Amino acid sequence: MNKFASGFMTICFAVAAVISSSALAQQRPASAGPVDPALMEDLIAANRILAAQGVVDAMGHVSVRHNRDPNRYLLSLARAPELVTEADIMEYDLDSVPVRDPGRRQYSERYIHGEIYKLRPDVIAVVHAHTPSVVPFTVSSVPLRAIAHSGGFLAEGLPNFEIREAGGMTDMLVSNASFGRALAEKLGDKSAILMRGHGFAAVGKSLPFVVGRSIYIGVAAKLQTEAIALGGTVTYLDPEEGRKIEARRDYIRPWELWKRQAMGK
Amino acid sequence: MNKFASGFMTICFAVAAVISSSALAQQRPASAGPVDPALMEDLIAANRILAAQGVVDAMGHVSVRHNRDPNRYLLSLARAPELVTEADIMEYDLDSVPVRDPGRRQYSERYIHGEIYKLRPDVIAVVHAHTPSVVPFTVSSVPLRAIAHSGGFLAEGLPNFEIREAGGMTDMLVSNASFGRALAEKLGDKSAILMRGHGFAAVGKSLPFVVGRSIYIGVAAKLQTEAIALGGTVTYLDPEEGRKIEARRDYIRPWELWKRQAMGK
Amino acid sequence: MNKFASGFMTICFAVAAVISSSALAQQRPASAGPVDPALMEDLIAANRILAAQGVVDAMGHVSVRHNRDPNRYLLSLARAPELVTEADIMEYDLDSVPVRDPGRRQYSERYIHGEIYKLRPDVIAVVHAHTPSVVPFTVSSVPLRAIAHSGGFLAEGLPNFEIREAGGMTDMLVSNASFGRALAEKLGDKSAILMRGHGFAAVGKSLPFVVGRSIYIGVAAKLQTEAIALGGTVTYLDPEEGRKIEARRDYIRPWELWKRQAMGK
Amino acid sequence: MNKFASGFMTICFAVAAVISSSALAQQRPASAGPVDPALMEDLIAANRILAAQGVVDAMGHVSVRHNRDPNRYLLSLARAPELVTEADIMEYDLDSVPVRDPGRRQYSERYIHGEIYKLRPDVIAVVHAHTPSVVPFTVSSVPLRAIAHSGGFLAEGLPNFEIREAGGMTDMLVSNASFGRALAEKLGDKSAILMRGHGFAAVGKSLPFVVGRSIYIGVAAKLQTEAIALGGTVTYLDPEEGRKIEARRDYIRPWELWKRQAMGK
Repeated sequence: MNKFASGFMTICFAVAAVISSSALAQQRPASAGPVDPALMEDLIAANRILAAQGVVDAMGHVSVRHNRDPNRYLLSLARAPELVTEADIMEYDLDSVPVRDPGRRQYSERYIHGEIYKLRPDVIAVVHAHTPSVVPFTVSSVPLRAIAHSGGFLAEGLPNFEIREAGGMTDMLVSNASFGRALAEKLGDKSAILMRGHGFAAVGKSLPFVVGRSIYIGVAAKLQTEAIALGGTVTYLDPEEGRKIEARRDYIRPWELWKRQAMGK
Repeated sequence: MNKFASGFMTICFAVAAVISSSALAQQRPASAGPVDPALMEDLIAANRILAAQGVVDAMGHVSVRHNRDPNRYLLSLARAPELVTEADIMEYDLDSVPVRDPGRRQYSERYIHGEIYKLRPDVIAVVHAHTPSVVPFTVSSVPLRAIAHSGGFLAEGLPNFEIREAGGMTDMLVSNASFGRALAEKLGDKSAILMRGHGFAAVGKSLPFVVGRSIYIGVAAKLQTEAIALGGTVTYLDPEEGRKIEARRDYIRPWELWKRQAMGK
Repeated sequence: MNKFASGFMTICFAVAAVISSSALAQQRPASAGPVDPALMEDLIAANRILAAQGVVDAMGHVSVRHNRDPNRYLLSLARAPELVTEADIMEYDLDSVPVRDPGRRQYSERYIHGEIYKLRPDVIAVVHAHTPSVVPFTVSSVPLRAIAHSGGFLAEGLPNFEIREAGGMTDMLVSNASFGRALAEKLGDKSAILMRGHGFAAVGKSLPFVVGRSIYIGVAAKLQTEAIALGGTVTYLDPEEGRKIEARRDYIRPWELWKRQAMGK
Repeated sequence: MNKFASGFMTICFAVAAVISSSALAQQRPASAGPVDPALMEDLIAANRILAAQGVVDAMGHVSVRHNRDPNRYLLSLARAPELVTEADIMEYDLDSVPVRDPGRRQYSERYIHGEIYKLRPDVIAVVHAHTPSVVPFTVSSVPLRAIAHSGGFLAEGLPNFEIREAGGMTDMLVSNASFGRALAEKLGDKSAILMRGHGFAAVGKSLPFVVGRSIYIGVAAKLQTEAIALGGTVTYLDPEEGRKIEARRDYIRPWELWKRQAMGK
């Protein structure tokens, strides 16, 4: 190679490097900056509460929107919720691309979170779980309904996501944006969605709300199962009762208890 | 304003202040005075026992009549029973108006307690709870009945409070005196009352009695559910057996255990 | 009163005292002497194991024959098994009369123990309990049967004691020798007996055996309840399988675990 | 005896001793040598995890192939899994003969492990357990099937070992090589096998796999039982979904949690 050729190649490499670096910069989203410490503490608490309350076992996850940017959300790397600490929390854009450390093990189903945040600006926090009492209702022709006050948010019924409609025979995981979007669309404006043969996703306007709903979906499932087992007729909550209950719902009292229990006081 | 006018206004303000203060004094009931420390200790214990035994989760509450005045009762401010300490205990008159600190967060359903105390002079303590095993019986056409000795107090059956009869479509909460009175009337002379889609209220002649009944309503519900699930015929406790059992019932032995467990020995 | 009369009365009082003291001596059985410390330790462990394993709650009791005299047995005073310590253990004759401290609160149903020991010289230890999974089988037309290896001792079925046959409408308690004898007769040569609307009594040739059986009666009840709930046909353990299982049964391995768990290692 | 006779006898004794010692040497298999400490730690963890997760109670066991020799496996002496320490681990050949300490109390059903290792070179770890939720499916005409993702490995169904086919009326224990082989043959290439009136055996390519499967067999049984109890039709996992799930299955996340929980962090 002569000097000219060599010089040309040097320029070519430099240009390629700029292009490549620019492409990378486009792929890697920018961080929204430091997270509010109180929100971070609640996110860690939410992880532990879900484990302590039996909503999740080693699997399942909870996220929250970044307090500085609605286009970013916070979610642990792939770890059992009971073990999650602040160092595990990653920041994602709504395409579920991490702003840093893309090499860390990540939840393959993080698209549940990102795609719901895209379609539901009112949603601040999302849970995905496989609570044992809920799963049977995802595969039964008997729909999950509320018999009690604590289940007011599901008095109108919940949609049930059938991944076969989105992808035929799969490994059941919502592990790409396409399945995530299909799930988010099926969720509509509801508080939660069942997932056939899998579990559920719940949403809320705060971490206490989404954690509260995740716990009481499981309670509702247990209550209905027992009510059916008695063999008589069952009086379900009227949807209007459900609406009136939810109109004054907060989770202040349970959140105080759950957080103290989960964080060791 | 001249001196006369000014003097007149001063008098007016003074009179207004007296009227206002007098009105406040009428609205704010007088305290019955210091609570017997042993009773206070049992009330705290009752809160923690109900949580430890799974009768209540974050919601539900327990009260006791003031030892100095049957027209006053003691109940925590709005807090999960597991967390209640002496500083949380408020004193109410039977209209469920607090004798002090009206600005603290209060249980919206305290009227369950006050209205029962009004109609039932024999009742010294009241529990309201949403025990999961009991709730299905509040919405089922199958009535809760006793199959075992421990449920003697419900061998004659329990009334079931349908809030739709008192208020149509509501948020299900007994959050005013009117609903409270309807519930107390339906309770009649029984030991407990179911509440449709909600839970139950239990009463007793002491904290150990009301706590014991609250625990064993839940046990009775579990036992009956399992007995029905076996698919055969079921022999229920005869009401006469129930009466004979309750005639010699005390909760001395369980109270010793529960209190030591709940108070950390 | 003259001197003669006075002297006569003194003699009368003295004679009365002797008679009375003699009568008392006859009523109060003699102690068999100090208990083997290893047996005492196992009796305390048995109390705590039954509580830890959910066989008993605040109620229920376990006894063992005195190692020095088959006509004496050892049983706690009236206290929740979880709380029992060596100081609570009382010594009874087979009429269930304590050798000392008759004024202490005693289990009103101790006659279950005494009367079984009378009729069953092979029995060294007795448990009475109200395990929730077992009680439904005491009132159901569906008999408790073994589906699994761990229930080998009940593969031939258990008798069910109906106290109405012995005493009509009662408070359900085996609180006298007559009811105790009726129960012991119904027990026959079996390992355990159900008690309608109440619970069960189990027997064994040692504390590990009676504790093991008490735990696995509850397990058998749960297993059968679940098997029935599946709705298909059920293959029960053949009585011959039960006999072969029990021929080589011991509770060495579980006893080591239960005792370490219950006694805090 | 003369000198000749005496000398002859001495030789005879010596020869007998050599024969005997040689026979013993043949009966006692050689050790494969020290175990990889990380494998040993995982084996102890597996024992405790199975207890902590309710897969085993005092009974049941877990083994792993020796890392130095596929013809040796490691299994505790007869002890409740919760209590097992490194000192309890014994080394066996595939005939389930220990390489040393044959006098220690051993699991009578160790043949389950040895015979499976013989027929399934792909299997690295084996569990035998009597999980309560699973046992009803071993005696019911209703087969255990997967409704959820976590049970992907049993989507094609599990064989059920009927020991009556191998041995008629027995004590139900797989306590010899013949029963062990019959079980291993029935297992075929599956991930687990039910055992009628007894429990199950599960296999895996590692300790995390076999522990994970043992836990999720129990979960699958609970989920199916509840789904059936709802009374409607049930959508089961498609075998193809099961295969796709298992193709990307690992137990990294749960193993991290279970091990930290079981080993006290």
